[in-house]
Amino acid sequence: MAAAFYESEWRITGCKSALRTVNPIRRIVDHLHIPDKSKLIPLSIGDPTVFGNLKPPDAVNNAVERVLKAGKSNGYLPSTGSVAARTAIAARFSCAPHGSSNSPISAEDVVIASGCSGALEMCLKVLAKEGDNVLLPKPGFSLYETICGHIGVECRFYDLLPSRSWECDLQQMEKQITPKTRAILVNNPSNPCGSVFSEEHLRLILAVAERNKLPIISDEIYETITFQGVPFSPMASLSTEVPILTVGGLAKQFLVPGWRVGWIMIHDRKDRFVSVRDGLARLATLILGANSLVQEAIPEIFEETPDSFYSGLNSTLETNASICVRALKEAKGLKVVEPQGAMYMMVEILFDQFDGISTDLEFCQKLLDDEFVFVLPGSCFRAEKFFRIVLCPPEDKLITACERIKKFCESHTK
Amino acid sequence: MAAAFYESEWRITGCKSALRTVNPIRRIVDHLHIPDKSKLIPLSIGDPTVFGNLKPPDAVNNAVERVLKAGKSNGYLPSTGSVAARTAIAARFSCAPHGSSNSPISAEDVVIASGCSGALEMCLKVLAKEGDNVLLPKPGFSLYETICGHIGVECRFYDLLPSRSWECDLQQMEKQITPKTRAILVNNPSNPCGSVFSEEHLRLILAVAERNKLPIISDEIYETITFQGVPFSPMASLSTEVPILTVGGLAKQFLVPGWRVGWIMIHDRKDRFVSVRDGLARLATLILGANSLVQEAIPEIFEETPDSFYSGLNSTLETNASICVRALKEAKGLKVVEPQGAMYMMVEILFDQFDGISTDLEFCQKLLDDEFVFVLPGSCFRAEKFFRIVLCPPEDKLITACERIKKFCESHTK
Ligand SMILES: Cc1ncc(COP(=O)(O)O)c(C=O)c1O
Ligand SMILES: Cc1ncc(COP(=O)(O)O)c(C=O)c1O
Repeated sequence: MAAAFYESEWRITGCKSALRTVNPIRRIVDHLHIPDKSKLIPLSIGDPTVFGNLKPPDAVNNAVERVLKAGKSNGYLPSTGSVAARTAIAARFSCAPHGSSNSPISAEDVVIASGCSGALEMCLKVLAKEGDNVLLPKPGFSLYETICGHIGVECRFYDLLPSRSWECDLQQMEKQITPKTRAILVNNPSNPCGSVFSEEHLRLILAVAERNKLPIISDEIYETITFQGVPFSPMASLSTEVPILTVGGLAKQFLVPGWRVGWIMIHDRKDRFVSVRDGLARLATLILGANSLVQEAIPEIFEETPDSFYSGLNSTLETNASICVRALKEAKGLKVVEPQGAMYMMVEILFDQFDGISTDLEFCQKLLDDEFVFVLPGSCFRAEKFFRIVLCPPEDKLITACERIKKFCESHTK
Repeated sequence: MAAAFYESEWRITGCKSALRTVNPIRRIVDHLHIPDKSKLIPLSIGDPTVFGNLKPPDAVNNAVERVLKAGKSNGYLPSTGSVAARTAIAARFSCAPHGSSNSPISAEDVVIASGCSGALEMCLKVLAKEGDNVLLPKPGFSLYETICGHIGVECRFYDLLPSRSWECDLQQMEKQITPKTRAILVNNPSNPCGSVFSEEHLRLILAVAERNKLPIISDEIYETITFQGVPFSPMASLSTEVPILTVGGLAKQFLVPGWRVGWIMIHDRKDRFVSVRDGLARLATLILGANSLVQEAIPEIFEETPDSFYSGLNSTLETNASICVRALKEAKGLKVVEPQGAMYMMVEILFDQFDGISTDLEFCQKLLDDEFVFVLPGSCFRAEKFFRIVLCPPEDKLITACERIKKFCESHTK
């Protein structure tokens, strides 16, 4: 009888996998008191659109408008994404290792997702399950932890070394590997570090992966964003042995993070990803990826965005970076690590020089209280001695913010 | 030493939760041979846009164009969605039970997701984990099973009865409940049945839920789509006791399934969903929901879409339904269940009248081979004696298709 099962009380609890989904930035920032808005300069938010000074290329708006007006792209797309978009992505990012027999990737090797976040979720889910672990960069983008927490995957961190422009501590990385390790996640160029790895360093990371027979998830969402004379090498261009899932998206390169279009590129090597490819295709059937208007606009966006757009964005960010580097090098008690790309820079707080400030949170809260400048505590990225500055605001705001930070350090150092 | 862990071979397998993600429609349809395209009439695809005869209201395109051109909505939105969109959704669908003390829902009770599919994934994930079970309608939309398979949740099916216009067999439903049951999923109006439940029947379902202290997931994505004289009642308007997650989206009502915007409405009752609400907010941080352009267009879409659009769509679908009902009632060996809403109708195959056809798959394959009409085998929805017709195509195609089906039945019945 069904009656036997009657519950006498309502006991509805959210499941563990939902409740253990934690965004470290929110957990930390929610403890800060953010003062009155008018004077506030937020250098905290990783959204390049908030100040209105950085605008997407015309090609982006034109392409979406054309697709919208044509009225032919309102329907469901294949679950892994529009063929035209996947073809364009494959063509743009194809990077078979030189002199290798790996064929360049094609549309079949691309899976479109709801933002690079969605791409990362799929990659982590297909490679690791509850009880497994993955290697993550420290400092690193907090979403990786959020997703791992959700799945129940243990995060094991490898150190990025500020003294070596945030290169990986490769020995320490390798020591983190256990029999339950399922992947090494690499983020290059880096959020929050603003670092860009050399080809040589990437080859050393690949050697660790190859020795341990581990695939790499390479988060290259900032791939076009490097400063003058800093070359970017796609991870997948450097190995004929290590299978790599490269993730990217429109968010940062084209300044449209709200549009939620990202992708996975499956760089298989020697058929090691047969089952992973199958798993990704299956995961893609769950929510059917990204908005069709934007997907269908991708070929035109790639084709019509002039080189001057990318170089313009990069030079704006580089100028902003040098403003901050110059200003904060003069600040007492701080140590700047010069960025080479992405949209961020990390600044070390030399606590022994400060009076009454002994944590990054205290530093950030006091800076908010005294000077109305909002920078993110390094704890958000597991870098407790640092704070992160976003390099996107207009020059004048950055200059003012840096002056205020200098003044703040002046009055709080011994 | 790290060396101790060196894997000697690459052993990368997709994780179980990915590999057990199965779309029953694909699994079944992939076994069919779909003949040459020119003559084919596909009545199989649940995408109202494929024929080009059904177009979104102008308001939809105008609103998105305006948001795009304003250039102010390219950034990240709150993880649960745009406040303006959530406010508009709450206002449109607010439906506190009459005479109850339940306050109408507000923006805080709405979570925007990547399509109604994304909304369903979140609801199922927050309520049920591996080893739990949920009650699903049979026949029912196959994505429910796909998601449950992914999570590892057992599907227990309650029967919808064709003889009673696809009402639930409530006794059999209640017998499916076990101590591990976490929710009852109800889809009204129904895909694939085209049925619409009366208020009275909904109250009986709610009574089952209440007796067993189970929350309801109410998939109301077709809520505006009912035929003349068939009233639709939102589940949440009928109970002051049973907490309900109602899911919906733009896909079907506004004919833009590719845009991937759906939502969850949290109809809490007596704080029974406190933990579920928390879990949903956490899950929303993983991929940050739906495209910002469309989200910000929602208030204008709701406001500016004239009533004539909804009634026009419904009358087109109703006309198409009566064409099919009339034609197929005359067909030998078939039994029609008249639809009352949504975009589908189910037709029973009376196998004992057929010669050499004993399964729905055989029926559909032979119909494809002989007459180039593609209908989905009922097996896709766990209704092995039926096939499903999509009612969206232009009249002339439907008329031709029905003629061909009649001819087909004529020549294959005894
Ligand atoms: C390193 C990195 N990866 C991924 C993302 C997420 O990108 P999306 O907005 O496309 O989900 C971000 C966003 O800040 C990021 O910094
Ligand atoms: C009953 C039902 N629910 C949900 C969905 C999925 O909707 P969306 O396209 O918004 O993900 C569909 C689509 O066919 C459906 O029929």
